[in-house]
Amino acid sequence: MLLLVAFNSHAEDGHNLWLRAKSTGPVSVVCAKTSPTLAIAKEELEQGWQGKKDAKIALTITKDKAIKGDGFKLSENEVQANTELGILYGAYELLRRQQTGQAISSEISNPSYERRVLNHWDNLDGSIERGYAGQSIFWHDEAKGFAVTEKDRTLWKEYARANASIGINGAVLNNVNASQLMLTTECLQKAKAIAEVLRPYGIKTYLSIKFSSPQLIGGLKTSDPLNPEVIQWWNNKIKEIYALIPDFGGFLVKANSEGQPGPQDFGRTHADGANMLADAFKPYGGIVMWRAFVYEANSKDRAAQAYKEFMPLDGQFRDNVIIQVKNGPIDFQPREPFNPLFGAMKKTSVMPELQITQEYLGHSIHLVFLAPMWEECLKSETYQEGTGSTVARVTDGSIFPQKHTAIAGVANIGLDANWCGHDFAQANWFAFGKLAWNDQLTSEKIADEWLKLTFGKTQASIEWNVCFLSPVKQMMLESHEAAVNYMMPLGFHHIFAPQDHYGPGPWWGPEGVRKDWTPPYYHQADSKGVGFDRTQTGSNAVSQYHEPLSSQFSDVTTCPEVYLLWFHHVPWTYKLKNGRTLWDEICYRYDMGQKQVRQFQKVWDQVEPYVDADRFAAVQRRLRNQSGNTQIWKDGCLLYFQQFSKMPIPYDIARPVYDLDYIIKNFTKDRP
Amino acid sequence: MLLLVAFNSHAEDGHNLWLRAKSTGPVSVVCAKTSPTLAIAKEELEQGWQGKKDAKIALTITKDKAIKGDGFKLSENEVQANTELGILYGAYELLRRQQTGQAISSEISNPSYERRVLNHWDNLDGSIERGYAGQSIFWHDEAKGFAVTEKDRTLWKEYARANASIGINGAVLNNVNASQLMLTTECLQKAKAIAEVLRPYGIKTYLSIKFSSPQLIGGLKTSDPLNPEVIQWWNNKIKEIYALIPDFGGFLVKANSEGQPGPQDFGRTHADGANMLADAFKPYGGIVMWRAFVYEANSKDRAAQAYKEFMPLDGQFRDNVIIQVKNGPIDFQPREPFNPLFGAMKKTSVMPELQITQEYLGHSIHLVFLAPMWEECLKSETYQEGTGSTVARVTDGSIFPQKHTAIAGVANIGLDANWCGHDFAQANWFAFGKLAWNDQLTSEKIADEWLKLTFGKTQASIEWNVCFLSPVKQMMLESHEAAVNYMMPLGFHHIFAPQDHYGPGPWWGPEGVRKDWTPPYYHQADSKGVGFDRTQTGSNAVSQYHEPLSSQFSDVTTCPEVYLLWFHHVPWTYKLKNGRTLWDEICYRYDMGQKQVRQFQKVWDQVEPYVDADRFAAVQRRLRNQSGNTQIWKDGCLLYFQQFSKMPIPYDIARPVYDLDYIIKNFTKDRP
Repeated sequence: MLLLVAFNSHAEDGHNLWLRAKSTGPVSVVCAKTSPTLAIAKEELEQGWQGKKDAKIALTITKDKAIKGDGFKLSENEVQANTELGILYGAYELLRRQQTGQAISSEISNPSYERRVLNHWDNLDGSIERGYAGQSIFWHDEAKGFAVTEKDRTLWKEYARANASIGINGAVLNNVNASQLMLTTECLQKAKAIAEVLRPYGIKTYLSIKFSSPQLIGGLKTSDPLNPEVIQWWNNKIKEIYALIPDFGGFLVKANSEGQPGPQDFGRTHADGANMLADAFKPYGGIVMWRAFVYEANSKDRAAQAYKEFMPLDGQFRDNVIIQVKNGPIDFQPREPFNPLFGAMKKTSVMPELQITQEYLGHSIHLVFLAPMWEECLKSETYQEGTGSTVARVTDGSIFPQKHTAIAGVANIGLDANWCGHDFAQANWFAFGKLAWNDQLTSEKIADEWLKLTFGKTQASIEWNVCFLSPVKQMMLESHEAAVNYMMPLGFHHIFAPQDHYGPGPWWGPEGVRKDWTPPYYHQADSKGVGFDRTQTGSNAVSQYHEPLSSQFSDVTTCPEVYLLWFHHVPWTYKLKNGRTLWDEICYRYDMGQKQVRQFQKVWDQVEPYVDADRFAAVQRRLRNQSGNTQIWKDGCLLYFQQFSKMPIPYDIARPVYDLDYIIKNFTKDRP
Repeated sequence: MLLLVAFNSHAEDGHNLWLRAKSTGPVSVVCAKTSPTLAIAKEELEQGWQGKKDAKIALTITKDKAIKGDGFKLSENEVQANTELGILYGAYELLRRQQTGQAISSEISNPSYERRVLNHWDNLDGSIERGYAGQSIFWHDEAKGFAVTEKDRTLWKEYARANASIGINGAVLNNVNASQLMLTTECLQKAKAIAEVLRPYGIKTYLSIKFSSPQLIGGLKTSDPLNPEVIQWWNNKIKEIYALIPDFGGFLVKANSEGQPGPQDFGRTHADGANMLADAFKPYGGIVMWRAFVYEANSKDRAAQAYKEFMPLDGQFRDNVIIQVKNGPIDFQPREPFNPLFGAMKKTSVMPELQITQEYLGHSIHLVFLAPMWEECLKSETYQEGTGSTVARVTDGSIFPQKHTAIAGVANIGLDANWCGHDFAQANWFAFGKLAWNDQLTSEKIADEWLKLTFGKTQASIEWNVCFLSPVKQMMLESHEAAVNYMMPLGFHHIFAPQDHYGPGPWWGPEGVRKDWTPPYYHQADSKGVGFDRTQTGSNAVSQYHEPLSSQFSDVTTCPEVYLLWFHHVPWTYKLKNGRTLWDEICYRYDMGQKQVRQFQKVWDQVEPYVDADRFAAVQRRLRNQSGNTQIWKDGCLLYFQQFSKMPIPYDIARPVYDLDYIIKNFTKDRP
């Protein structure tokens, strides 16, 4: 029995995330004030201190105009901030600097976005839409009621701590495809219990709501946002919420999108719906995050629709409404150009929505570090206010005078011991927090820090840097491009198998299914070529981009090749800049993606001496699976598209090992 | 309708095997005699003639002492032989020379073995043991009776023609695991019908018998071979057979082997059993082929048993008994050293048994040309009568004065349109016939001829030689070594998954199963090393080989490395001649096997312009499957043995993509 306990205590299940520092000596923490948040800051410093022994450190709350929001100023022996939460963030950053061996000079760190929010797509029955790390940490089987246990509270506290350590200050507790039951008193009571655990860590609680709740649980005959009874119902409901959760953050709303109800059901606009709720929130300081993820069946181009629907409403939204816009115009694909709404809506608060959970990037099986993809989006030039109007700057308040700024990440967190399924998926949670705090950070810095915190020792050796840190970091930084290569290179998008969004499915398009839910809609392959024509000769979605982008994307010779098939229908024999035909380059890209993952396997196998056995084996196993998957992607896509190109796979490329019919039959939905 | 017929007539289903020549001009064939066999020879020459137009060719039956058996002498305008069958063989060879562009100079071709026999493991219900090309061409569902149709006769005739064209002159019509029903009158009537179709082509009919038939269908109380009633029963039965089939060849007997009944059940020896039957055959010129494939449960070394059981009987067998000995001491493994009975039984006729059907070599999915394996065996030095006592020469009558010589091949033929499942498996049927006729032939010559006949045009171009013949021949010649590499390199043997003998199963060894039916019995892996110790410190099976082989095999430093783990239990860290450790070399071998098959895929894909679409696609598909299989073999074996070696797979080798538990669960029995 004892032996078993001892063994278990040594097993490394990844539960501690990037929070592994243990104090190497006493420290004296001095703070004039006391509060739950400050107590946490003090405790963290004492338990994680790695600086000089017997040092004294002051936690100082002042008013410093150079410090914004919950920002902080760090020095060797002081954390200074305008708010208690700023102190806590400063404490975590100080510990991180110590653990990663970064110098601490007097410097200010301010958050890029006011609201840095995780969106949990957690259902009230405990399942998670697009969740790959177990059931919900918030909700269990609703049939069993909404009781809260000490075990729940312990986990929520660990969750809050992890979030606070990287600056996340908001959590939407339930799925955007919301149940009306969320707003019942029973559910709100549970939300209150969660909010109380999160509060000392500075995490505000938000909820997703179903727009037809007034009818479904309020007994009203309509949910028309201009109807006085409906307005009253929402006012009452929001009042009820604030009585339970005084610091409640607001609502996240998916309306008139993929079958969800919304104001358009009553002849009203998105602005009518959002503003009605915003007005009700106004007295409490709450906000409405209104999603722009809308598209109709049988439209000419799904990618062009959000812009068409929302741009006419620019200027009509209240200042406590934020339009939540996915990074790209379609749906979290391996690579998309940025959504043209960014920067275009100049009189409206707009917030980026990133997807941390890997719905389209290999679930919790593939090792894909998402920071490079997000960095690529955030640093994209929109040109909406001249050079420098990056997606980051048009959303973080640098350029437009938004009342509120925010950024959302769809969480990848579940009940799995290591929270995220894949140990390296923790890095994506971490990266989201870091980028939400500082949208100018590089992926390299994030990966470096995360690896040191998650796999490193306090005193990293040169050997560790050379033999572990450097190759593993390189693998992480290359991993997204590899995934693009083996899944959807050159601008391919949404050629996934249906439902699961895991394996390839470019062939999938049964009769009777909405065309825009089938891959052929997106790849448009025929005997002449492949790709979606979004130029003037096609859907003209290019016109939604500000010049010079519109012209650049529209011209096949200037369009970045990474977006080639996103914007153009290109002949198979078209010569790319490297001299290869399009068909050959498609082949080489899929092959390169496979080779990259095979190389990742070698990298990982060689760092075995530097990793605990449990995490080593877990990651090794997933890399094998990922590597096997690249074969299915490559064979499936090349053999499928070859039916149109009628050209041979270049003979220096390893040949398929699966037949197309075998893949279609066996792998279209399921994982191998 | 017409269109469909036209299309079908162009589809290439491989049914024509290596017999594709069509006459390019008239020829006048002159023969003094007429007979069914001579008529065939004449017809073949007329329909396949590719020589000078209006040539005259004489078929001359003489008595020429330089010509042996059914041998022949060829010249530009004459086929000369001592027998009608010799004329037929000469005619086929003449046509082959024309089609492959080989010169015809006056030369004699004599058969190496008197009897060149296919063993069909066909059951009376139409199934075929270890058959991978459809059901039996001879037997259909026995419940439906034994009626013979015209379709049957057409197919048998095509079968007989194919055999005759390569010199095969015998066919055992049913499985060695024989049903007693074979000797019932109803079945014998069907055998008679088959024999009548085969006869003009010179194919003698043989049958496998169940040794306990006197009890099972004769109503006797015993099958003791010394019992007068039993002897009488067999005499009567053989008499009955010869009344139906006057040229009947004899019996093939699997006795006291894998549960089959035999003389030992009655306290008699193999010699007692075989001689009793041989005596009954004597008046008719029939023979008994008695298999030496015997091994007991729980023996120290299965490989040593046939020798132990049969050597004491040397000299006791009648001269019309031939002991049928598998090429290696275990069971048709990807590579075995030759069976030590070859050359050791000096006073007994011994015939090699080769397996054409790829029970242990990838069934009809893997492309494995078996001629190199057989050539390796036939040319192995036994040293039993000094240098030059090769397996071929000690069995073909060159060295010992055997009354009868013979060689058997377990057929790979079924109802599949192309006879053999894999188009390239036809080459193994072809190669068996060619080697049975001339046991000194090289694999290269056989492959060259088969490719020209099967895929070539009459006037082969230099382009065809360079772009098709040369690379495809190279692939064939390398294919067996590749299979050894990815399945069982360095002397590994019988580490197959159970029953199916297709995928890897080195881990398979459930409680209660005979140890010698489980792979761990054969590989003996432990923390120290791997391999079966057959030296003096182990089973001492090495002592069954004649010096200098016994000493050479016994010493780990002189043992050929291809047999290393067959004869030795070798430490994982043992240094091979190339300087690598055993473990590393095992890894490199599996990896090389995979690379070789991947290369075969490239070879095949590049010859697409030279192959009809049907056979191209069929072979391409199988190569993909084979290539995928190499991954399962490599990953399964390396991850399994790594549990013992505890050494890393060299880092320049592509990593596994499957986990061991996944392979064990999903692939141990079934094909992917």
